[in-house]
Amino acid sequence: MPAHAVFRAEDTQFDVAIDPLIETLRAVLPGEGLIVHEAGRRAYECDGLSTYKQLPLLVAVPETIEQVQATVRACSEAGVPVVTRGSGTSLSGGALPHPQGLLLAMGKFNRIHDVDAERRIARIDPGVRNLAISEAAAPYGLYYAPDPSSQIACSIGGNVGENAGGVHCLKYGLTVHNVLALKVVTMDGDITTIGSEALDSPGLDLLALMHGSEGMLGVIVEITVKLLPAPLTKQVLMASFDNVEAGGHAVAGIVADGIIPGGLEMMDGAAIQAAEDFVHAGYDTQAAAILICELDGSEAEVADQMQAVENCLTAHGASAIHVAADNAEQARFWAGRKAAFPAVGRISPDYYCMDGTIPRKQLAYVLRRISELSAAHKLETVNVFHAGDGNLHPLILFDGNQSDQLDAAEALGSDILQLCVEVGGTVTGEHGVGVEKINEMCVQFETAEIEQFHAIKAAFDDQALLNPGKAIPTLNRCAEFGRMHVHNGELPHPEIERL
Amino acid sequence: MPAHAVFRAEDTQFDVAIDPLIETLRAVLPGEGLIVHEAGRRAYECDGLSTYKQLPLLVAVPETIEQVQATVRACSEAGVPVVTRGSGTSLSGGALPHPQGLLLAMGKFNRIHDVDAERRIARIDPGVRNLAISEAAAPYGLYYAPDPSSQIACSIGGNVGENAGGVHCLKYGLTVHNVLALKVVTMDGDITTIGSEALDSPGLDLLALMHGSEGMLGVIVEITVKLLPAPLTKQVLMASFDNVEAGGHAVAGIVADGIIPGGLEMMDGAAIQAAEDFVHAGYDTQAAAILICELDGSEAEVADQMQAVENCLTAHGASAIHVAADNAEQARFWAGRKAAFPAVGRISPDYYCMDGTIPRKQLAYVLRRISELSAAHKLETVNVFHAGDGNLHPLILFDGNQSDQLDAAEALGSDILQLCVEVGGTVTGEHGVGVEKINEMCVQFETAEIEQFHAIKAAFDDQALLNPGKAIPTLNRCAEFGRMHVHNGELPHPEIERL
Repeated sequence: MPAHAVFRAEDTQFDVAIDPLIETLRAVLPGEGLIVHEAGRRAYECDGLSTYKQLPLLVAVPETIEQVQATVRACSEAGVPVVTRGSGTSLSGGALPHPQGLLLAMGKFNRIHDVDAERRIARIDPGVRNLAISEAAAPYGLYYAPDPSSQIACSIGGNVGENAGGVHCLKYGLTVHNVLALKVVTMDGDITTIGSEALDSPGLDLLALMHGSEGMLGVIVEITVKLLPAPLTKQVLMASFDNVEAGGHAVAGIVADGIIPGGLEMMDGAAIQAAEDFVHAGYDTQAAAILICELDGSEAEVADQMQAVENCLTAHGASAIHVAADNAEQARFWAGRKAAFPAVGRISPDYYCMDGTIPRKQLAYVLRRISELSAAHKLETVNVFHAGDGNLHPLILFDGNQSDQLDAAEALGSDILQLCVEVGGTVTGEHGVGVEKINEMCVQFETAEIEQFHAIKAAFDDQALLNPGKAIPTLNRCAEFGRMHVHNGELPHPEIERL
Repeated sequence: MPAHAVFRAEDTQFDVAIDPLIETLRAVLPGEGLIVHEAGRRAYECDGLSTYKQLPLLVAVPETIEQVQATVRACSEAGVPVVTRGSGTSLSGGALPHPQGLLLAMGKFNRIHDVDAERRIARIDPGVRNLAISEAAAPYGLYYAPDPSSQIACSIGGNVGENAGGVHCLKYGLTVHNVLALKVVTMDGDITTIGSEALDSPGLDLLALMHGSEGMLGVIVEITVKLLPAPLTKQVLMASFDNVEAGGHAVAGIVADGIIPGGLEMMDGAAIQAAEDFVHAGYDTQAAAILICELDGSEAEVADQMQAVENCLTAHGASAIHVAADNAEQARFWAGRKAAFPAVGRISPDYYCMDGTIPRKQLAYVLRRISELSAAHKLETVNVFHAGDGNLHPLILFDGNQSDQLDAAEALGSDILQLCVEVGGTVTGEHGVGVEKINEMCVQFETAEIEQFHAIKAAFDDQALLNPGKAIPTLNRCAEFGRMHVHNGELPHPEIERL
């Protein structure tokens, strides 16, 4: 486990009187609603970032909004941290339990209340699986656009908490662009409604603020999402390149030509081979890189765009372009991409998945630098990523049984994320900060910006009980990490350090 | 002037020692940078909502970011309110001066720093006019999408502050969807950068929070906007209807069919006649309502959509459909729509422009109810609005010289906004709250929600000096307005009342 990112003592100083809290919660959460015994809590000790494990103090499994309110109110009064969890697929430890906190498991909030085809909205519980929304909307010719690779399992509440993306978010936006309203339980147990069906709401825009807030501002108990009409037609093509940089230039070129594909993904040679061996997607295993590009819309629009994309790819040196012949081949092209992470898991004992974003025009440069950094750290890196929106997922291969390799992987990962920030990008695109990238936040943000985040967090949760130790580093942590931007020798404000 | 919306005593209790402040500011703002004499301040006494007038205590006209920082810092130390102003075209009094405050006029921040065609972004000063951005981008085949009717005059900083919309925002989004990053001076004089070129940023989403915050969270000193490629082609059609409700149904039908037009506007009989008399747009003056619909994209896409829209309009009872023959006729159709407000100004001594939004499916019902409410209040209402996104602009005609008519217009306006909230809409779509709709915010929001807004405002501006008395009502004001949602007899929190 990377040593620098575990909970710090200052994040865990909660003085919990557990017996009266259990007594209060037993009255609120009958039967299996409160889990106290260790074997039951063990099931919640980690999320998708399984290198981090932590037993929660207690687990609550509420079934009603009133139970959520009463549970949160009891924790607030007892001064006990609350970590909300959906399906637990977070890749950054967002749902990692707090050792002195209650884990609020929202799995029983799994109802789809309403699919309204005319208004094109669905009103759903936070524990509903992402894919289940599209399945419920399909009879009306509608679907929910954001599609993280984990969509079969991940919950929509977690999607909001992490502002999840996916293969199609280049064209159809992130979770924040596809959610209209939230019902939220605040840390004092009140319910507020945030957002509306209108294009814009008066008052401060709290809807976007909630997205990507990683469970630190409130507990989401209901979500209203936009539904889109299924595209009339689509085409998927695979373009081969003799080197990774040419592929990077082609991506920037397509978007610069005014085309926003439904999806535009890139895989390098190692990723192609791993995916091909795993799912037999029909990829060009001779290529140094492939682009998979989906175009959707009306027949005429897709035909127009297909011509323009083929011209652009050829101009940027594509050695071959293969258009999927039918739905089955389209599905195979995407299956290979979506299975790339487990495919890489088959060829290396361990891998460390990064999630930086960069401006598209920097793609070729950054891919070359990643290759140089990998060589310097003597570790192989596999690249498979959302090229269209510049969201990289370099997978660093290592063997966790060799402790020097874990250190090297961490160091290489940190170098890659700093490279992303240097070229004008960010340390996370869609996986969130969680515990994993909390130190890199010190690289991304200035002192004043981190102070601002803490002030807003306090405006929702003045005891700092919601998911403490995640997403926003203390200035103290940044100073220790040695990456704080200290202006004119000014020290971080002491009042924030104590948070 | 509507009596209920002027500054309340509790909003104006600032104890200002003006002489030392002037001395400090003279050192910061040389020459004409500080305006103290009354004649000079008079030029800033109102914005586009000209029924409200207020002389500011002082006017600052900074030329550099450092001057903004020093000015804000001086006001912060002196406990003096700061109201930021761009071009002053706000229709809700957002830039109305505070009687004991400094008016921060950003007109000298009018440089376009950078237009980057490959990255499709422009980096600009907040005082740059909206239309000037598209003019600077035109040589590259690009433009800035949001186009409020005031675009020739309004500034981009004000567009962010009000989250401005426009005719094309149905398809291309509001200001918030077209801005990538902001440089902001906080009330303590620090600079923070909010947002980035990446699709998503780590940390809390403050970029959306700044949009529509009406100058209450910080002073924007630089803006990075997205640029879009100019559409390859476009078509504009005018459809006539024998009654307003049929037009409303047709709007809902077009969007329900999966078509998002570039623009979809509606005008009723009185608006048609007024605009026709004024600019000779070529409108069908026999119609009870017309829809103006613009479709843009590739030739093939536009042809496809045009067929679908014509089918839908016919199915919903359009009595005539006229497609503009050339660019000149397209421009005339839009000129009539954009000139509709001044055109109505020619037929009535005064008018009161409302800005509610409603779900599209409620259009026909709400238009009928507005007509009934108008009859009940014995005032004529003219409707011209962004039909596609359900953003109504009922113009209530009255004669301000007859005081009972002003009261009646206010009462009718309030009834219309409450009707919007009742059907699931909002009290403002794109004009902002300002001072004009601050009481209606009490109808829109619950106590807990308004408290949350105040807490977030305090996280940015703990002395509540930025644009006080605007946008977010005190709970005390709501209680007096008689529209506070009081739950279980609970009184509003006293600590908020004092804000």
